[in-house]
Amino acid sequence: MTIHLDPAPILPAGFLASGLHAGLKKKRVPDMALLVSDRPAKVAGVFTTNQVKAAPVRLSRGHAATGRGRAVVINSGNANCCTGEQGDRDARAMADLTAEALGVKPEEVCVCSTGSIGPPLPMDRISAGIPKLVKALSPEGGAKAAKGILTTDKGSKTVTATFRAGGKPVRITGVAKGAGMIEPNMATMLAFLLTDASVPVGFLRKALATAVEESFNRISVDGDQSTNDTVLCLANGASGAAALKRGTRDGDRFEEALLQICRKLAWDMVRDGEGADKVIKVLVTGARTELEAEAAARSVANSLLVKTSWHGTTPKWGRVMDALGYSLATVDPDKVTITYDGLAAVRNGVMASTPREQLEAVHARETFTLGIDLGQGTGESYVFGCDTAHRYIDINI
Amino acid sequence: MTIHLDPAPILPAGFLASGLHAGLKKKRVPDMALLVSDRPAKVAGVFTTNQVKAAPVRLSRGHAATGRGRAVVINSGNANCCTGEQGDRDARAMADLTAEALGVKPEEVCVCSTGSIGPPLPMDRISAGIPKLVKALSPEGGAKAAKGILTTDKGSKTVTATFRAGGKPVRITGVAKGAGMIEPNMATMLAFLLTDASVPVGFLRKALATAVEESFNRISVDGDQSTNDTVLCLANGASGAAALKRGTRDGDRFEEALLQICRKLAWDMVRDGEGADKVIKVLVTGARTELEAEAAARSVANSLLVKTSWHGTTPKWGRVMDALGYSLATVDPDKVTITYDGLAAVRNGVMASTPREQLEAVHARETFTLGIDLGQGTGESYVFGCDTAHRYIDINI
Repeated sequence: MTIHLDPAPILPAGFLASGLHAGLKKKRVPDMALLVSDRPAKVAGVFTTNQVKAAPVRLSRGHAATGRGRAVVINSGNANCCTGEQGDRDARAMADLTAEALGVKPEEVCVCSTGSIGPPLPMDRISAGIPKLVKALSPEGGAKAAKGILTTDKGSKTVTATFRAGGKPVRITGVAKGAGMIEPNMATMLAFLLTDASVPVGFLRKALATAVEESFNRISVDGDQSTNDTVLCLANGASGAAALKRGTRDGDRFEEALLQICRKLAWDMVRDGEGADKVIKVLVTGARTELEAEAAARSVANSLLVKTSWHGTTPKWGRVMDALGYSLATVDPDKVTITYDGLAAVRNGVMASTPREQLEAVHARETFTLGIDLGQGTGESYVFGCDTAHRYIDINI
Repeated sequence: MTIHLDPAPILPAGFLASGLHAGLKKKRVPDMALLVSDRPAKVAGVFTTNQVKAAPVRLSRGHAATGRGRAVVINSGNANCCTGEQGDRDARAMADLTAEALGVKPEEVCVCSTGSIGPPLPMDRISAGIPKLVKALSPEGGAKAAKGILTTDKGSKTVTATFRAGGKPVRITGVAKGAGMIEPNMATMLAFLLTDASVPVGFLRKALATAVEESFNRISVDGDQSTNDTVLCLANGASGAAALKRGTRDGDRFEEALLQICRKLAWDMVRDGEGADKVIKVLVTGARTELEAEAAARSVANSLLVKTSWHGTTPKWGRVMDALGYSLATVDPDKVTITYDGLAAVRNGVMASTPREQLEAVHARETFTLGIDLGQGTGESYVFGCDTAHRYIDINI
């Protein structure tokens, strides 16, 4: 399967995008974005599991459930969350105004907001911004839209996959944001996946759920989940390719490309984890079950003591043992092996003979795999985590 | 009930203590301590629930289970954890050497270690230190012993309660250590409670379990649990007071004094939370059950985003809502009320009308109560937490 990845957001056929400063943020940076398909598209969505759901999440969940859509309008700087009935009205107004300006139905528009929780949306600025966004729509607007959705991110997160499926070249373009509150289940993150492939909505939903599970749900920045997380995928068939079927070679290729796109964006999010310098893959093997492996990996990746030690130079595997011990996984310390990029730090629960300098050399890498074998069974899982540095506090204070 | 508290560690009748530098730490500070009763005492202990238990924890659990004891020997600088069979032999040797020097049985000696996980105990230094500790024993040795058990603590944690029970004045003295890894269930903390009251072992165990549950188990510094946590209580009856009975006025007074001692030490631990400037009581009411209230309080007190916001000046209650939403408690955002020392920030899930300056004034206090009413039922619980500052990273890097 040849899937070509490009870091730029080259919009697939039939898609238009725009981004601009509408005045939600004090700084003169883009704070609104619009993504539009020039023809009806199939839509699939995955939303936060937090019990506190922002108004736009409640609205978009309903709209995405129809399986059809045309546009996504996004604002940053304000999460429209914990804003009561006014928040629901404002989210609906965002959809209505966008639908009106585009000449589509309100149910065909999904709405996303990200930023501070609590204050009401400044609807005057949003209302003024929407017609400008529509006017600015362009096939080259992907980069601007990618900027308009950012909050504390260091930079845009974009990627485009090109491959053949259904007899034609097709594309998937992904744009995402996410920095703090990344864990688990896609906390304060937004990702939009646009494709000109023709994908039946059942297949699209299934493919998206799998890709999210193996990408955005495998990253951890600080253990917090957000109220606004949303991943939306629009497939408009504008490539002219035949409709894809699940389980066929072309269907598999589409699923693989979607996963690669999501993994790339998820990885970019961890790398951009607020103030983080390193990305560490915590790979747990030998757990009793896959769920126990995941619990162990998350316990380690979320331990503030472990994350702080990653910021330093010494592999403090004692803290890893400690985090394993209080995880929900079954742990017998005498059976635990811990490796850094394959170099053993712990064998059967006690310090291995690997020279400390060798372990420190691995630990100094910008990215490495922390391997943990629990010696209990065949359960495996992994999580990508990052270190905690001073900048995390400076950003979130 | 008149219970007099004194911050100094004034040892109860029949107790001796010592502390000195045995060479486990590079810095010339006390790194070993010994606590001894000059006559047989009743013993009760509470130990870490971490699946990875240090060798001294495994040993002392067995010794404390006999209900009788004479001494506790402690070293800092090395946790004797993940040290395999050698670790078990070393912990046993610490008990044996101490018992021999004191002329008591090895089972009458409990052993505690705290410090780095992994390296073997430097037994030459420990062996040389024990006879010196025995020689230095003194009724005035409490303060030195309190210093010998510290790790990254800013200072000693000691307190003495004096009250009448069993017809005589009796004392309980507490010394403790704990800074990082405090949460839940007493992570990397040691606390020793010595009393000259006469307390049957069944009552002693029950009273200790209750006091620990309402003190050390209610504090949270960083959500990590340690491998070495131990609370030990020795009651030697040297006051000459009659044996206390549970449910009597004097028995109640003893329980109350023990709780006050534990609360004072727990509070000191949070205040000393690595780099922390503030202590916040997270009080959850109106939860469906007490367990749900505790889950909600812990989710908030452990959220890195919430803790970082406490370090700043603005009450970021949106992060509190977020942490409630992903807790295991049942949360309907429209029913949530959030207060800062009684001032409402959120009513029924939306921003209250309290002027921001007033909320900021409370938030600037060194300590305040973050009240959360979930509006679901009558379940109540609380946790003491602290802010996360740069110094936390500097200490743990």
